[in-house]
Amino acid sequence: MEVVLSIDIGGTSTKLARVDQDYNVLDTTTIDTTRYTDEQSFFSALYTTVRTLAKSMKDGEEVVGVGIGAPGGIPIDGTILGAANLPFSERVEVVRLFEKEFDWPCFLTKDSYAAALGEGVAGAAVGMSNFVLITLGTGLGCGIVVDGQVVHGHTGQAGEIGHTISVENGRECNCGRRGCLETYVSASGICRTAFELMATRKQCSLLRTVPFNQLTAKMVFDAALQQDELAQEVFLRTGHTLGDKLAELVTIVEPEAIILAGGLTNAGAFLTEPAAERMEEQLLKSLRGKTQIMLSNLKVNEAALIGAAAFAWQNLKNVSVCQS
Amino acid sequence: MEVVLSIDIGGTSTKLARVDQDYNVLDTTTIDTTRYTDEQSFFSALYTTVRTLAKSMKDGEEVVGVGIGAPGGIPIDGTILGAANLPFSERVEVVRLFEKEFDWPCFLTKDSYAAALGEGVAGAAVGMSNFVLITLGTGLGCGIVVDGQVVHGHTGQAGEIGHTISVENGRECNCGRRGCLETYVSASGICRTAFELMATRKQCSLLRTVPFNQLTAKMVFDAALQQDELAQEVFLRTGHTLGDKLAELVTIVEPEAIILAGGLTNAGAFLTEPAAERMEEQLLKSLRGKTQIMLSNLKVNEAALIGAAAFAWQNLKNVSVCQS
Repeated sequence: MEVVLSIDIGGTSTKLARVDQDYNVLDTTTIDTTRYTDEQSFFSALYTTVRTLAKSMKDGEEVVGVGIGAPGGIPIDGTILGAANLPFSERVEVVRLFEKEFDWPCFLTKDSYAAALGEGVAGAAVGMSNFVLITLGTGLGCGIVVDGQVVHGHTGQAGEIGHTISVENGRECNCGRRGCLETYVSASGICRTAFELMATRKQCSLLRTVPFNQLTAKMVFDAALQQDELAQEVFLRTGHTLGDKLAELVTIVEPEAIILAGGLTNAGAFLTEPAAERMEEQLLKSLRGKTQIMLSNLKVNEAALIGAAAFAWQNLKNVSVCQS
Repeated sequence: MEVVLSIDIGGTSTKLARVDQDYNVLDTTTIDTTRYTDEQSFFSALYTTVRTLAKSMKDGEEVVGVGIGAPGGIPIDGTILGAANLPFSERVEVVRLFEKEFDWPCFLTKDSYAAALGEGVAGAAVGMSNFVLITLGTGLGCGIVVDGQVVHGHTGQAGEIGHTISVENGRECNCGRRGCLETYVSASGICRTAFELMATRKQCSLLRTVPFNQLTAKMVFDAALQQDELAQEVFLRTGHTLGDKLAELVTIVEPEAIILAGGLTNAGAFLTEPAAERMEEQLLKSLRGKTQIMLSNLKVNEAALIGAAAFAWQNLKNVSVCQS
């Protein structure tokens, strides 16, 4: 049986697995990315783990390629533009390095593009050929699928909706600009909104005892569950900001569904209801009621792994993997 | 030689032509759309003109299909959702009607999608597989091309960027909402901005003698050419509003170029310079300098005709017509 080695490089951990053509995740290993401080040590550890994973194959399994998803991954040239939270900040030619080290063809894509493919082949978007995946975690990632293919853009950087402006002259963003969607709709955005509301209002809240650097989105969610009105208002505002942007996105690419994934989606209806309501309100009449907002149904650890494998299969077999 | 009959349905006039596979426009006829007040009389005139055009073929020409571009055209089901300025406001099954009337296969798309295809096969975007066409006329139309294909969206309505919000609670739009891009960046948007500026400022201007219902974008342009500072400011503001939105679009789909077409582009650098400057300012650093803003180089009357023909050829031959 043919399998691909799938690798999901992340700032905290890097996951590896063998994945078959039916997108079964056969075996998973994890590397602690934070243990490595430079490119060489990280890739050296990665190669060792890849070899171990390849050796642990069952009889009859045959590795036919490698699929990699990574933040800052550029599918067009197989490089990673080192992100702030990776052990390298310079551009690394990952595909070239891998193909020098191993005999398998290697395919690399951005983590959010991989996650979109994962939803398309094994998640909430199975059977759809036009959809958008948005991951809500520390940041906000996005993969847009049109006619069964992820939109890469001219230089492989499409889908950076987290860095479109939500509020003119708004919050400072890691990218050096102000008011990006990601500074409002993300785990840290939730915390910033909570402190903004505490500053503006005199309303009681469970969150008033927590210092800024200790507050987490989960605490805000837990407070919301305990009927803390300020915490609930935080999710309402976050949902509205997301909904405004989703309306723009629907007006531009008109997907069948928008799949939300990532840690923040644990908030469920606290986030999705105001987002869906605001999105519908903000749409042209002819576009209303045509795009569903859905939650991912893949395991958090598996979505990008499956998607990176799907990207490899797509290239190995030269087929579109997302189809209606 | 195989040709297609190409039809560009518009609110003012409807153009017809025979177009060959090299996108030569062989013969053109025009119908005055405003003479017709209902669906039946309009299509009856259209059929007659199609027959005349087919009869006037030279020896050796053979019609193999019909391509139609129209406002409100839905490529997925071949219907037109009657627009305000067409002689019918209900949904009309144009492809079904045409294929009942004639023996040729018929393909229908939205006018702005056709214009994008026209640029891709014979205009400013030849050789590009990722670009966006924006028509700036009475309204603002948009066609997005990804990997050589126009993005139609789930129900064939993608690309309505003219109806994304530029100013919250801004100007009233024909669509019933407020603040749409089209109410700022269009011929009528230019006029509205001129009156807004005249109301706000005390600055002299050639435009102060013109009543609202007589002002045209061309008058504002002519005043700008005569160093009228208020008129120049109108174009500056319009360009900035456009540039803000183009930055969003680039961040989402990352095209190689944005092609501007339509009457308003006669303003040239008055519009494109502030638009390009603002777009670059508003982009993520990694996206800067990667997307060109260009002007269409097709004749205004031919872009959509060529594009409607390209849509027909694409479907007849089952190929992607825009390629790098």
